[in-house]
Amino acid sequence: MADDKKFVEKITSREEDFASWYTDVVKEAKLCDYSSVRGCLNYLPNGYAIWENIQKNLDERFKKTGVQNVSLPMLIPESLLQKEKDHIEGFAPEVAWVTKGGVEDLEEKFCIRPTSETLFCDVWQKLVKSYRDLPLVWNQWCSVLRWEKTTRPFLRSREFLWQEGHTLHATYEEAEAKTKEMFQVYYDFVTQDLAIPLICGKKTESEKFAGAEDTYTIEAMMHDGKSLQSGTSHFFGSGFPDAFNIKYLDKENQPHSCYETSWGMSTRIIGAIIMVHGDDSGLVLPPRIAPTQATIIPIAQQKEGVLEKANEVLERLQKVNIRTKLDDSEKSPGFKYSEQEMLGIPVRIELGPRDIENNECVVVRRTTREKTVISLDEIETKLPEILEEIQKEMYESAKQFLEEHIYSVTTLEEMKKIGEEKIGFIKAMWCGDPECEDKIKAETGGYGSRCIPEKQEHLSDTCVCCGKEAKEMVIWGKSY
Amino acid sequence: MADDKKFVEKITSREEDFASWYTDVVKEAKLCDYSSVRGCLNYLPNGYAIWENIQKNLDERFKKTGVQNVSLPMLIPESLLQKEKDHIEGFAPEVAWVTKGGVEDLEEKFCIRPTSETLFCDVWQKLVKSYRDLPLVWNQWCSVLRWEKTTRPFLRSREFLWQEGHTLHATYEEAEAKTKEMFQVYYDFVTQDLAIPLICGKKTESEKFAGAEDTYTIEAMMHDGKSLQSGTSHFFGSGFPDAFNIKYLDKENQPHSCYETSWGMSTRIIGAIIMVHGDDSGLVLPPRIAPTQATIIPIAQQKEGVLEKANEVLERLQKVNIRTKLDDSEKSPGFKYSEQEMLGIPVRIELGPRDIENNECVVVRRTTREKTVISLDEIETKLPEILEEIQKEMYESAKQFLEEHIYSVTTLEEMKKIGEEKIGFIKAMWCGDPECEDKIKAETGGYGSRCIPEKQEHLSDTCVCCGKEAKEMVIWGKSY
Repeated sequence: MADDKKFVEKITSREEDFASWYTDVVKEAKLCDYSSVRGCLNYLPNGYAIWENIQKNLDERFKKTGVQNVSLPMLIPESLLQKEKDHIEGFAPEVAWVTKGGVEDLEEKFCIRPTSETLFCDVWQKLVKSYRDLPLVWNQWCSVLRWEKTTRPFLRSREFLWQEGHTLHATYEEAEAKTKEMFQVYYDFVTQDLAIPLICGKKTESEKFAGAEDTYTIEAMMHDGKSLQSGTSHFFGSGFPDAFNIKYLDKENQPHSCYETSWGMSTRIIGAIIMVHGDDSGLVLPPRIAPTQATIIPIAQQKEGVLEKANEVLERLQKVNIRTKLDDSEKSPGFKYSEQEMLGIPVRIELGPRDIENNECVVVRRTTREKTVISLDEIETKLPEILEEIQKEMYESAKQFLEEHIYSVTTLEEMKKIGEEKIGFIKAMWCGDPECEDKIKAETGGYGSRCIPEKQEHLSDTCVCCGKEAKEMVIWGKSY
Repeated sequence: MADDKKFVEKITSREEDFASWYTDVVKEAKLCDYSSVRGCLNYLPNGYAIWENIQKNLDERFKKTGVQNVSLPMLIPESLLQKEKDHIEGFAPEVAWVTKGGVEDLEEKFCIRPTSETLFCDVWQKLVKSYRDLPLVWNQWCSVLRWEKTTRPFLRSREFLWQEGHTLHATYEEAEAKTKEMFQVYYDFVTQDLAIPLICGKKTESEKFAGAEDTYTIEAMMHDGKSLQSGTSHFFGSGFPDAFNIKYLDKENQPHSCYETSWGMSTRIIGAIIMVHGDDSGLVLPPRIAPTQATIIPIAQQKEGVLEKANEVLERLQKVNIRTKLDDSEKSPGFKYSEQEMLGIPVRIELGPRDIENNECVVVRRTTREKTVISLDEIETKLPEILEEIQKEMYESAKQFLEEHIYSVTTLEEMKKIGEEKIGFIKAMWCGDPECEDKIKAETGGYGSRCIPEKQEHLSDTCVCCGKEAKEMVIWGKSY
């Protein structure tokens, strides 16, 4: 029995200390660890396999919209980074600089990309000549580096994995529409594949990306009520393309400005999966993204015919593309259950001599521990149904949590009170002045503006902070 | 008609100047171009799509053998790189150094990984405790950076994309077997999926990887008779693990050394695809790896029903997972043919009003331009057959070229003569002395040792260079 509790005992409970719970889960599920390079992570097999599935599903969604993948260099010459004023101001303090190549000091130093707007513009400047060359809808899967001071697994690290899409268009309207289209792709992917409900909208002036005209964000609520920015889509207008002198000739041979977007999602999203769905027994992975969807755990596996049947079930499930593993190691079934729960595998299939005699097996859900007895004849059809049900239930349950933790207020006092007593997001009206935004954050103990939702509500006429005329409703929250 | 010849006219012929032909093809097929970072490439959509298919197919083969993917940092602390003596000597002159992070000078400088043996050992040192933790069979898809002086698209660039597999084992024998297993995976992938015939075997002492006990290589013959090293698998013994103090405890709690392998294949292989299969009309891609396998080119597309039928065929082919595109642009059919040939798309499907009337279409192979008339009713079954035939024929044709350009010699004089008069590889006996190896290369105008094949032939008793007793037969060749 000591064995059975091994994993759970290693995890701090969520209520006791959410931050410790998080790092315990990351460690015990062997998702990633810190490398010898300060602030940089080793993405270990269990963690990287989740990222591989994210890549696969998201990349398919991208390609359906016509995205083409490319790969541009990891280095950016200093002169290139400096071409767009706001951009260099935003990123210069946090880049790493290469100053030596081989044994020689470099004439011009290079930074390791913190993001690649400048590199994409540099390629396009040579490539784009006429309207026939547009639009360009490109993306790359890569890592970027930002010299952060404090780091946390998946949430903030110096080097992290992401995709960065960059597109170039002939008109303002087309680029703006693309910004929103990719924002929608993120929304669909996160809600449908990761079972994470979202709030979404535009960022305020002070929260938007360095150099962008507009930034759209999707934000998820973690179990501690804080927000995690989970994906952003930026509209640049013609700022970058003009700074890089990218012009196209129209049908009448007249030169025109181009319009640009970029959009990114990173390994941070794995942090969101952990903190939205996880519980005190460990990780809980949505079936659509789980590297292993089902583990078969044989009971009394030394008895004749048990492992044989388990292997048969394994093969049958793999044949219908259910990502299944068989744990036939010599550990006790209890230990295996605990391990399956720690790793967040959506279901385990318990299969013992009596089950085999009855031509059935017991499917246990990771989320609720609900047991379902299934005839072995129907396993190929029933298991996908159960996995789909789990996926839906995970979304519904997280959505309920999100909805129960959003409050509407009309005064700063109310806001402070909620900040002290509750966790979650707060809806409140705002005048549009960055000073009020800063003051609200300072006085509520960290409630920053998360987004300006497209679907506005009229909560009151005046700004919750200064009392002047309100411009829009903002969702406020503490954040990672 | 001027239009029709557009692409071909832009390419130098292979016989006239092979090097110019190569760069012309890379440029006109828009596979990659040089970035503003000297010696670093932009992998453009057409080139990167080939790499994506290589990744997909090779990664599947890896996973069948039990490989798990991970992602380790791109930076290596100087002290870590220095832990294995031969390794640092081999790589120190060609790494880029990060000396500044943000606004601060770093206490210890980092190099951008030229390869990651040291990083994998660093992770394992913390992770491996007992025999239960072994074996570890890991791989990562990433880019690495080597500060090369001269560069060529795909063949040699400062930054390049690759996969690097690293494995750790409890015994010498198991690690040695893994080295050979992965070598075989490369061989199967390149011959079967890329239709490229190979010579293969061990590298000589002076050609093996910095720090390895043995290096196995697969080498392909380009159309100019030169060799391209296409993939390598290294056996390290316990050198690296011992240098990093990685020990495991056996069942009796006794500490033991671990044994290591690594193996890599890079975007160089795209260079091999171009130079083995390409012709004077451009790229020729093997069907299994071609991003687009078939282009439908409508004839007289303005006529009623043509585009409708073309779209129907497109949908039907996509439904059976043939990567098909329809070119319904306003360019002339001749221009479209030329473009399909330039891009190396394995077949084009010509479809005009008369074809539709006869319920058929014309399939034209990229390789031979052979035309096959197919009933539209059978297109879903016939086209895969044709693609598989093309795949086989491409391999057979390249194999014939390879076999026709391997010569056996017993004297250095013969070798020099072949070097002057012919292109290709030369088999000759060798005593095992690196001095003879160097002398042979110098006197034959560049015929270096490519590999020591496992399947040895006894051509004579003595070394082709010094006349002393021969130890083994070596395949010699000029190389990229």
